[in-house]
Amino acid sequence: MEYLKNVWIEKVHGDDIDAEEDVVILETRVSIFLNGQKAISTMCIPKDQDAHAIGFLMSEGVIKSVEDIESLELKADGLEVHITARIDEESLKHLYKEKTLVSGCGGGVTGNTAENVQVPFIDTKLTVTLDHIRETVGRFYDESELYRLTGCVHKALLSYEDGTTVESEDIGRHNAIDKVAGKSRLKGLPVERAMLIVSGRLSSEMVIKAVMHRIPIVISRTAPTFLGVKTAQEHGVTLIGFARGRKMNLYTHSGRIKP
Amino acid sequence: MEYLKNVWIEKVHGDDIDAEEDVVILETRVSIFLNGQKAISTMCIPKDQDAHAIGFLMSEGVIKSVEDIESLELKADGLEVHITARIDEESLKHLYKEKTLVSGCGGGVTGNTAENVQVPFIDTKLTVTLDHIRETVGRFYDESELYRLTGCVHKALLSYEDGTTVESEDIGRHNAIDKVAGKSRLKGLPVERAMLIVSGRLSSEMVIKAVMHRIPIVISRTAPTFLGVKTAQEHGVTLIGFARGRKMNLYTHSGRIKP
Repeated sequence: MEYLKNVWIEKVHGDDIDAEEDVVILETRVSIFLNGQKAISTMCIPKDQDAHAIGFLMSEGVIKSVEDIESLELKADGLEVHITARIDEESLKHLYKEKTLVSGCGGGVTGNTAENVQVPFIDTKLTVTLDHIRETVGRFYDESELYRLTGCVHKALLSYEDGTTVESEDIGRHNAIDKVAGKSRLKGLPVERAMLIVSGRLSSEMVIKAVMHRIPIVISRTAPTFLGVKTAQEHGVTLIGFARGRKMNLYTHSGRIKP
Repeated sequence: MEYLKNVWIEKVHGDDIDAEEDVVILETRVSIFLNGQKAISTMCIPKDQDAHAIGFLMSEGVIKSVEDIESLELKADGLEVHITARIDEESLKHLYKEKTLVSGCGGGVTGNTAENVQVPFIDTKLTVTLDHIRETVGRFYDESELYRLTGCVHKALLSYEDGTTVESEDIGRHNAIDKVAGKSRLKGLPVERAMLIVSGRLSSEMVIKAVMHRIPIVISRTAPTFLGVKTAQEHGVTLIGFARGRKMNLYTHSGRIKP
């Protein structure tokens, strides 16, 4: 499948660390052009782009019916969808009226940052042991009252060398990171010496948030995307996924991790 | 906790259906004002709003350091964060440069729709049985090759009365809905007689997408938010959460569900 990417990772299982090839999902920016104008971009799997554009524009009330579509064409190797259609101008305006980041989003903007803002490379010498990671991840999952009650929140935790931890929960995985970083900033904690643990998937904008805050180690119990891995590689973040029990996958800059 | 809401639901367990009080999470729109101008809004849990705003603006490179913040004030019962700070004007411009919906988002825009676009009320007489729901949800989870390979995708499926099913996967739960609705539209299928099953949480913008496509029944194996429940109530959507094995929770318009 053309939206899968092979990456070499280090698989940790107990005390064993083995290099292995693994597969991660590709996320790409697909842009929708409406009557010759760029309407919006979306980070997604480059598959069913035509259906995606139509479903999205109808969800937003911009196109009322498929009958209103005159033509639809994929260009730029599928990264652009060009649509000619009769549209509802009012609904189209609402697309731009207010920038609202919805739950699970929060990064509607960080999606742009990497291209426009000077993003640092993290070269800190911080190291942590596998056991310390396991212990911290274990505690991370013990303590979510809000998740237990609602099943509807993501969590982020920053763990510091002196044992201090700061945590936040939110509906959005991006919000949880912003909150925990902001809390740490307000307390004056050295986030550039912290380990970030999150409950959500590691897509590129999650990694960029960490980079912008100079957080050198990012850990999740679930999966990264290919762009997440690539971003971590390029900006000096140690990226760890599938951290569960005695196992974890080291995707990038594993030199900070000691057995 | 002020960000939890009690709702009355019908809990299904096998053949038993009992009315019970349950708790769901509140999602609210919090707006960030920067030097007197509204910068952005975000759907989130109304908690740690100050940290959220600071973390977010630093993630985006708009504020470089907490020392650059002169004042921070919560207004409008915590729904507005007003910040006076030295900012990076270039980074602020990038917030508005291009509208990109990141994975897990896709609804950066649907967040606005409800207030601005005429949203229908769904009054279809469609009914489905508990067994049919269980069977469809069961199959839904059997068949995700991409999830098995990457652990990093959401899935959406539309199930029709004649047994036809259409499905899509994407990194973003919002994208998956847009794609499956778009595919159905392209095939000319009657989405207003379909049941939508999704792998992600049911926040308000997921429900609004269903409403805009006139899909009367929406089901997830995980949780809705309070605003998701409220939106479903107001727009005639039968909302079902925590559909697992023999159990499920009926949140709204349960009249369409037959034992």
